[in-house]
Amino acid sequence: MDAYAFLASVREKRPLVHHITNWVTIYDCAQVVKSLGASPVMAHAPEEVEEMCGLASALVLNIGTLTSEVVDTMKIAARAANERSIPVILDVCGAGATSFRDRKCVELLDTVHVDVLKGNRSEIARIAGRQVRTRGVDSLHVTGDLGAIAFELACERSCTVVMTGTEDIVADSAQMLLVRNGIEQMTHVVGTGCMATSVIGAFVGASPADPTLAAAAGLSCFGIAAELAGAQYTGPVAFKQRLLDDLYCLDRFQVDALQRVVE
Amino acid sequence: MDAYAFLASVREKRPLVHHITNWVTIYDCAQVVKSLGASPVMAHAPEEVEEMCGLASALVLNIGTLTSEVVDTMKIAARAANERSIPVILDVCGAGATSFRDRKCVELLDTVHVDVLKGNRSEIARIAGRQVRTRGVDSLHVTGDLGAIAFELACERSCTVVMTGTEDIVADSAQMLLVRNGIEQMTHVVGTGCMATSVIGAFVGASPADPTLAAAAGLSCFGIAAELAGAQYTGPVAFKQRLLDDLYCLDRFQVDALQRVVE
Amino acid sequence: MDAYAFLASVREKRPLVHHITNWVTIYDCAQVVKSLGASPVMAHAPEEVEEMCGLASALVLNIGTLTSEVVDTMKIAARAANERSIPVILDVCGAGATSFRDRKCVELLDTVHVDVLKGNRSEIARIAGRQVRTRGVDSLHVTGDLGAIAFELACERSCTVVMTGTEDIVADSAQMLLVRNGIEQMTHVVGTGCMATSVIGAFVGASPADPTLAAAAGLSCFGIAAELAGAQYTGPVAFKQRLLDDLYCLDRFQVDALQRVVE
Repeated sequence: MDAYAFLASVREKRPLVHHITNWVTIYDCAQVVKSLGASPVMAHAPEEVEEMCGLASALVLNIGTLTSEVVDTMKIAARAANERSIPVILDVCGAGATSFRDRKCVELLDTVHVDVLKGNRSEIARIAGRQVRTRGVDSLHVTGDLGAIAFELACERSCTVVMTGTEDIVADSAQMLLVRNGIEQMTHVVGTGCMATSVIGAFVGASPADPTLAAAAGLSCFGIAAELAGAQYTGPVAFKQRLLDDLYCLDRFQVDALQRVVE
Repeated sequence: MDAYAFLASVREKRPLVHHITNWVTIYDCAQVVKSLGASPVMAHAPEEVEEMCGLASALVLNIGTLTSEVVDTMKIAARAANERSIPVILDVCGAGATSFRDRKCVELLDTVHVDVLKGNRSEIARIAGRQVRTRGVDSLHVTGDLGAIAFELACERSCTVVMTGTEDIVADSAQMLLVRNGIEQMTHVVGTGCMATSVIGAFVGASPADPTLAAAAGLSCFGIAAELAGAQYTGPVAFKQRLLDDLYCLDRFQVDALQRVVE
Repeated sequence: MDAYAFLASVREKRPLVHHITNWVTIYDCAQVVKSLGASPVMAHAPEEVEEMCGLASALVLNIGTLTSEVVDTMKIAARAANERSIPVILDVCGAGATSFRDRKCVELLDTVHVDVLKGNRSEIARIAGRQVRTRGVDSLHVTGDLGAIAFELACERSCTVVMTGTEDIVADSAQMLLVRNGIEQMTHVVGTGCMATSVIGAFVGASPADPTLAAAAGLSCFGIAAELAGAQYTGPVAFKQRLLDDLYCLDRFQVDALQRVVE
């Protein structure tokens, strides 16, 4: 895979990425999209999401601080996206922590088509029907074959499934990729998971013909920026700043040298 | 114009700036006001905005993540501000992207008096009735005489109009100023537009007798801080941090040397 | 007091701290908890707060951008916390600014048990029934014996009261501690007060048997990190970043050398 080619496509096409996301990391989700050279827009009024989504190249949904009302608005936006073949990316943030989150995720998945379904190990396992728990938004241990869980869910929902972890799994019904970029210190920073979802939104928005490859390329680039930023780790907040700025500066030489995507 | 004198007035009077703003940039809007030496307060419960606004020297409204309910609350706050002659600053963030935003902006402008109406080129042109679109919150190209559009809207709404761009236009029915501070890299950072609005809020709050001059002075100081911060540009996030801190440190020598306001 | 022992306990137990907090500083509240080695989770849907809170070691409530609906949700979460003996920390952010805030604080305190009640001088004095005002979220001058106000309120509400200021007062009905760590520049940064509350949440979550000592230890560690970060002060935003990262790196040597808690 040529991850840099996907990044170059984001920078060239500058996709508009419409988000209905959580209130904790909303700024960083917008900035990571901007750091990639794309355009973020955040809008959640039920009266305007259909029109806003219609302008966009991708729709990112993140249930991190969901309410019933926000999920209803997500459905309106996602329906509009489905009708226009705009890819929908859903981060099932916190699935497995409460039955309300589980129920709302299933409700979304049963109502609209999601093109990329993304979460950490216990979040994805929970949506795949496993009896696991998530500790707030932190993954707990999941037993069994992680790749099989992702693959099974991808088949069930006819979508790309992204299961993040030490190694990220990106699967659809026809292929599975392993992304081995990134460093452990990303877990010290609030919002790296949400930012990764927005990165996927920008990459899939620029390359909608192959969401699985685009998602893997996005995760690889994000992880490479983290590796570069982590070379001089002094703490999580300085690291996050450098991660975003290294992503902004990322060049072909760096991506080609550091990319670790196993197809 | 002596932009530094307006900044000195903000630092001396420390105006309280009440915001009803968007959830993306709410932190940076508060911090930019604090970095100026003023006091931000964010409050949006309909039960308290009238009383909160009554304590304040300026009211900043920003529709970036508007809902019908929040706009209703903005009206309550702005009415209270109008009654007490507290200046109201409105950022028509995203006008031109959806008809809902356009409608809500007009509704606000028809219901309450706004002292400073601010947006980028396509946002202001849209509110002035031009058939232009905004790409999410990013300005699209606007044809025609930009100064004339700003002037016409200023006369129609009896207010100061701020149209930001490579060169910022600040106009009321009697005068037009051009602010030529700032650098292109500000567009790489999420929230510089929102922060500029909060800066205007602090400056107008400290110098309510002349909102047009105060708004231009605020934009000039903000742009100068960006020029200083941009001298060592390594990426958008490090740049934003230095912009806020350079604004905090800005002195008369810097402002006098770099100010570029054409009257 | 051995403040470092309390910090070590946070890092070892990694308590999950459930927040229902304000939209301005929500990210920094989450990150400060993560920087301590604990786990933050933010959730405010009425349908899930009971279950989410049940997973947590502490519940942090902050009324900075309250609405009636959010306060109702806080009650549901706090009742669940009370039933399970999970400590509840309440930041009465902005009490004294509007009668709505005062009323909602009293309503919360009359409906559920709060274990740690925290605010700045005028906020706490207002909740203790004094006729003082708060300027937005900034403390105004409070006359009289501050320790007596805190002690009286602690007795009335059977809780620990934290009154922040140049010197922080931490009182319950049996003891009073003075925390003399921290620097004046913390007031230049939006959110240091909210972050301090989240720090208290993490410390009390890890050491629920003695909330008063744990709260004082948390404030001391937070203040020490600020002293370290402030040694090279160049502006509020760079300072905030170093504060969070110095907190992450804080070791026994630093805490023992700099701790200033008067029992």
